[in-house]
Amino acid sequence: MKVTVHRKAHFNAAHRLYNADWTDARNAHVFGKCANPNYHGHNYELIVAVRGEIHPETGFVMDMKVLKHLIETEIEAVFDHKNLNEEVPVFKTLNPTAENIAVVIWNILRPHIEEVLELSVTLYETPRNFVSYSGA
Amino acid sequence: MKVTVHRKAHFNAAHRLYNADWTDARNAHVFGKCANPNYHGHNYELIVAVRGEIHPETGFVMDMKVLKHLIETEIEAVFDHKNLNEEVPVFKTLNPTAENIAVVIWNILRPHIEEVLELSVTLYETPRNFVSYSGA
Amino acid sequence: MKVTVHRKAHFNAAHRLYNADWTDARNAHVFGKCANPNYHGHNYELIVAVRGEIHPETGFVMDMKVLKHLIETEIEAVFDHKNLNEEVPVFKTLNPTAENIAVVIWNILRPHIEEVLELSVTLYETPRNFVSYSGA
Amino acid sequence: MKVTVHRKAHFNAAHRLYNADWTDARNAHVFGKCANPNYHGHNYELIVAVRGEIHPETGFVMDMKVLKHLIETEIEAVFDHKNLNEEVPVFKTLNPTAENIAVVIWNILRPHIEEVLELSVTLYETPRNFVSYSGA
Amino acid sequence: MKVTVHRKAHFNAAHRLYNADWTDARNAHVFGKCANPNYHGHNYELIVAVRGEIHPETGFVMDMKVLKHLIETEIEAVFDHKNLNEEVPVFKTLNPTAENIAVVIWNILRPHIEEVLELSVTLYETPRNFVSYSGA
Amino acid sequence: MKVTVHRKAHFNAAHRLYNADWTDARNAHVFGKCANPNYHGHNYELIVAVRGEIHPETGFVMDMKVLKHLIETEIEAVFDHKNLNEEVPVFKTLNPTAENIAVVIWNILRPHIEEVLELSVTLYETPRNFVSYSGA
Repeated sequence: MKVTVHRKAHFNAAHRLYNADWTDARNAHVFGKCANPNYHGHNYELIVAVRGEIHPETGFVMDMKVLKHLIETEIEAVFDHKNLNEEVPVFKTLNPTAENIAVVIWNILRPHIEEVLELSVTLYETPRNFVSYSGA
Repeated sequence: MKVTVHRKAHFNAAHRLYNADWTDARNAHVFGKCANPNYHGHNYELIVAVRGEIHPETGFVMDMKVLKHLIETEIEAVFDHKNLNEEVPVFKTLNPTAENIAVVIWNILRPHIEEVLELSVTLYETPRNFVSYSGA
Repeated sequence: MKVTVHRKAHFNAAHRLYNADWTDARNAHVFGKCANPNYHGHNYELIVAVRGEIHPETGFVMDMKVLKHLIETEIEAVFDHKNLNEEVPVFKTLNPTAENIAVVIWNILRPHIEEVLELSVTLYETPRNFVSYSGA
Repeated sequence: MKVTVHRKAHFNAAHRLYNADWTDARNAHVFGKCANPNYHGHNYELIVAVRGEIHPETGFVMDMKVLKHLIETEIEAVFDHKNLNEEVPVFKTLNPTAENIAVVIWNILRPHIEEVLELSVTLYETPRNFVSYSGA
Repeated sequence: MKVTVHRKAHFNAAHRLYNADWTDARNAHVFGKCANPNYHGHNYELIVAVRGEIHPETGFVMDMKVLKHLIETEIEAVFDHKNLNEEVPVFKTLNPTAENIAVVIWNILRPHIEEVLELSVTLYETPRNFVSYSGA
Repeated sequence: MKVTVHRKAHFNAAHRLYNADWTDARNAHVFGKCANPNYHGHNYELIVAVRGEIHPETGFVMDMKVLKHLIETEIEAVFDHKNLNEEVPVFKTLNPTAENIAVVIWNILRPHIEEVLELSVTLYETPRNFVSYSGA
């Protein structure tokens, strides 16, 4: 009997879409205004979902206070009010698309959550564009 | 060819998180301000989802008017403007976490929905904390 | 390693629920005020989700600009500011319930999206009623 | 010491924008796709706001239950699941723009609310287009 | 040249509507299910708005970080996860309607904000019921 | 008899808060993480409101299609996917706080809207921080 608990968080960041192996012209052609070398930015909204059995003593799948704190220390502290391309090392060589950011967040959180629990993340780049990733 | 129909409803209730087998000190330690013996409360938002074949004559998986009425009589009438710990009998001995409330709602609704239809519920305790349960 | 990208769009349309094989009385009995022969309408909100591998060069599962344009040309151009029963031919003989509209949208989009990518659609008829369909 | 209380409601309706004194060509030119003779529709969201002194015995400016019931009987019963042009008599000769609908709603509600209370209405035609009217 | 800055916050609380000068029967008659002696609760959403000149050196009307901190220490610390009737002294004798809570919040915040700045508060008791107060 | 029409739009941009007359240390002290020299960013949501008489022939205060197009050409084309500090000339010397951006937008739009109509703008920097300006 498995239940999924979801916690919503957010961070504000600058980024640009850019493939360092390409010419500037090709970057501009493929990524359009998202390739602007001066950056643009977003209010990212993040939903972290954890699925597992309810612990009979607490009634929790995972204590939301613990999950909230984990997102603050592992994700918000690293991403909030940052330039993703310049200040988050993984994006020196990985294009910070919503897809790649979601996978990076999942990979950061996974070791901090009990192995028996399933993890998925949903990342809103805008209210109209969002992505989700469950590790497979 | 299965489609899922979703109906959103809501109820306002008071609760506290509390394990009767624990000391007050342990309840306060584990549940923090959620263990306040004077209660606090939430605007719960509930999404009930039913999945099945589209009936060829009506174009419905399940008549939303019927589903709306079912949620009103079986859930809202029981939970709305209530103290969950004091007035909903199952929570005399079961801690009314979002996880447990979602499972209780699912168990209440399941016998009222045709067996061939799959049922899942999503319960928002706040806009930032929510849970989902599909019966397994 | 599969990621799902979601794009939100919208269209405003009139419709009525109606089964041409039934008497008006039976239509009124089953569909209630939704059977009003003069029509009513909705702001439909549509979420199209596409799941697949991230392309290593772009960091995209599918270019959101392409997906946005596809929804505009294939769905919005056909459904927006239209009377679904009168002006969208498939609904001459198919009841335009949210369920059937979602299936029709999925069927329209499927051939335009690479076969290797999974497709699902979620359609909000109102903020309180919505449906989803994944092709099976 | 005046406080404003707000109550949110909704209705779904079909309409078209149309000036009967104009040719069809001019209607199409001015109103674009909103002039579609087969109608389109919206989920209208309505916020009714009432401003006045707090009654010292109840703590209410106006009982929300009374306001909710008033909106149901005077507005929702008349507008919901209707074709505004065909079934709401005032719009036989008045173009049902969001502006005009808001004024009509205000005029309907005004006599039902104590004179000493100020009234204003906000009407969302879509989440992106809305109007407000305060009677002057 | 005055600009208004708005900051959104929230707190979860239990309450009941109750006039101590009335019989229980009259309380039940006037306040309906809101008079439940076992309490119910809400996720209150609070918007605090401050209007004034933009400071030419900072570009701020009021530093949002300061406003956020003020709401945390003066409002959230006092109201969050509390039983308003039992644990917030002013509501021992004042009925905790949304109207009265909004006025109480305004009165708490007013002395902490520079006199030259105008203050108003909007309090959502539910997404469908909300009140606003500007001090006059 | 004046009605207000509102149109919602959005743009995504990078910025940093910075006063060029101050040392870096003072900028960091006053603006905190918002002073990050590598920028961060936001999904700005903009509501433009225009108040005036309803034109008796159209039923419009101002044609929403015209207002939508005006926001696209005058605001979105200039601000969307841009670095406000680097690419919008007025912010070379004016700190791009939400307050200042709102005033700049109002000043850009004012000459394009009939003088008899009142104009106000509301700018959401995040869902929790927003500002409004009406020209006085």
